[in-house]
Amino acid sequence: MATPATPLLKDQLDIVIPTIRNLDFLEMWRTIFQHYHLIIVQDGDPSKTVKVPEGFDYELYNRNDINKILGPKASCISFKDSACRCFGFMVSKKKYIYTIDDDCFVAKDPSGNDINALEQHISNLLTPSTPYFFNTLYDPFRAGADFVRGYPFSLREGVPTAVSHGLWLNIPDYDAPTQLVKPLERNTRYVDAILTIPKGTLFPMCGMNLAFNRDLIGPAMYFGLMGDGQPVGRYDDMWAGWCTKVICDHLGLGVKTGLPYIYHSKASNPFVNLKKEYKGIFWQEEIIPFFQAATLPKGCTTVQQCYIELAKQVKDKLAKVDPYFDKLADAMLMWINAWDELNPSGAAGAAASGTSK
Amino acid sequence: MATPATPLLKDQLDIVIPTIRNLDFLEMWRTIFQHYHLIIVQDGDPSKTVKVPEGFDYELYNRNDINKILGPKASCISFKDSACRCFGFMVSKKKYIYTIDDDCFVAKDPSGNDINALEQHISNLLTPSTPYFFNTLYDPFRAGADFVRGYPFSLREGVPTAVSHGLWLNIPDYDAPTQLVKPLERNTRYVDAILTIPKGTLFPMCGMNLAFNRDLIGPAMYFGLMGDGQPVGRYDDMWAGWCTKVICDHLGLGVKTGLPYIYHSKASNPFVNLKKEYKGIFWQEEIIPFFQAATLPKGCTTVQQCYIELAKQVKDKLAKVDPYFDKLADAMLMWINAWDELNPSGAAGAAASGTSK
Repeated sequence: MATPATPLLKDQLDIVIPTIRNLDFLEMWRTIFQHYHLIIVQDGDPSKTVKVPEGFDYELYNRNDINKILGPKASCISFKDSACRCFGFMVSKKKYIYTIDDDCFVAKDPSGNDINALEQHISNLLTPSTPYFFNTLYDPFRAGADFVRGYPFSLREGVPTAVSHGLWLNIPDYDAPTQLVKPLERNTRYVDAILTIPKGTLFPMCGMNLAFNRDLIGPAMYFGLMGDGQPVGRYDDMWAGWCTKVICDHLGLGVKTGLPYIYHSKASNPFVNLKKEYKGIFWQEEIIPFFQAATLPKGCTTVQQCYIELAKQVKDKLAKVDPYFDKLADAMLMWINAWDELNPSGAAGAAASGTSK
Repeated sequence: MATPATPLLKDQLDIVIPTIRNLDFLEMWRTIFQHYHLIIVQDGDPSKTVKVPEGFDYELYNRNDINKILGPKASCISFKDSACRCFGFMVSKKKYIYTIDDDCFVAKDPSGNDINALEQHISNLLTPSTPYFFNTLYDPFRAGADFVRGYPFSLREGVPTAVSHGLWLNIPDYDAPTQLVKPLERNTRYVDAILTIPKGTLFPMCGMNLAFNRDLIGPAMYFGLMGDGQPVGRYDDMWAGWCTKVICDHLGLGVKTGLPYIYHSKASNPFVNLKKEYKGIFWQEEIIPFFQAATLPKGCTTVQQCYIELAKQVKDKLAKVDPYFDKLADAMLMWINAWDELNPSGAAGAAASGTSK
């Protein structure tokens, strides 16, 4: 039953935080985050100053920095929206990324102990996923669990885990209509499970508390065009999730969801959210069947190749839903160009050049 | 947050118990089971007497009864193996079935309260399933939960739930090799979740603590040929689960797993189990890809039609693995014949004739 201590991967993981405010929330995370490098991406007016508490190792990018670094390709990075966080994924040189929203605090487990979310994410990423057959006792790689009777032995090795999707206690991640209908609902249920999302199944990926292996899946973690000048918001992480899942399924990589929880402190304004979301609520009815049906050619063997192919399919099949998708498909290609420019050794080799910034 | 009380469905549910011993375990379930009719199927020597504690409403079938009722078709029902439980599914006239092993006791939740497993199963069966898209907060129909942001509204109605697969605290349902390697492992993790197994994903269905809607899926719940005279054991529930899942996916029905837990008291002998299982351990490496690839023609619109088609495919594609599957395919057809003979109004109409026995 003994499990080895989870390595902390101090030199191999960056924490990416999009923000418009002062990062006071970091105080609560100090003992956990202080060992890591932070990449802060300012998602609002670049003339304002984001204050970071003393003692953290960080770099901060505002819109002017992004424009300077990416030049004309900066247009693929959203402005005045937390979707800009993906710029942090691109400039990182580490193997692993953890991204968290600045209204997320340390949660407590049912025994009242602080949850080290980062340690759990690392453990999720370092153990295999099992996308080809469901294990009824959930993650078989956790202490005290295993594969149950009837689980084929040939599938027990699993596949490398690319994504660890963590959850939220207190304010659940609801859409605006659900927020409006259930303003008082709080998530108080601590579900002590991690599980692999099966191959061929899509899920709503939330960017609030998310970790991934940048070497394995980084270039798919593009958060799209949201915010300033765009017709839709709050679909940045969903878009990244759909693309990521289709590519993980194609490349034989795993996506886990469940633990760890963070404590989500503040519900965003449902009226503002409704304005941002309402087109997405229509569009997702066509987007999701598109992604459910999407297949990638065998020849696509890198994340970049898969992503470029997916961008073509978006242009072919979703542009008729709204011209926005035509623009988004172009931005997807621009994103890959920018990624490759900043990561010249290629996705799989990016870690090799991984000197900490 | 208030949820309506779960109806108890007293006249609509039978409890099916396979046994070779005296049913002392029923004492612990008295307050829960006493309102229901029990169908006891004796899986050993019919000359021995099974004693049922006073005060339960039951009918008991031994091998002689099965032979008398089914005549030559009785050969599709396993002898000296708990797989014979499916005879109870066939003779029931109720809409719902709960089946439980006689070494399963009432479990306690983390607060120390007795878990009413049956009530949770009924609640699982009476609320829809969501097989087409994963909800990260698990069952959206539970109190305090809902569909999360990004879940398509068109899919929120869900589909009817056909199966509720419950889990086990204490002795986990491991295969013989895992039992041998981890003799002391106990399942102590109470995972407070119910979830739908996504469409297209197979799972290892355990018959220890299982409920289903007999009208929706009954004829697929055939537990195969095990025990006396057969080359394999402990794959009865697995077989039923694979067939059931493929048919549920085809017919647009849901399968849930998770809560409720029962307390599984006694590990079976791993050496005996290994002898029963070892061919299955080889065979499942071919059986599972077979079921993963199986598709049913659109014309199959009843469970019986689906099952007959599946039997044909078993004969065509698995008989080459071992002659056993040729015999099993024949038994599958015999099972459907017997089912239809005992349930002349057809699967969908069985409830209409549902006078309590």
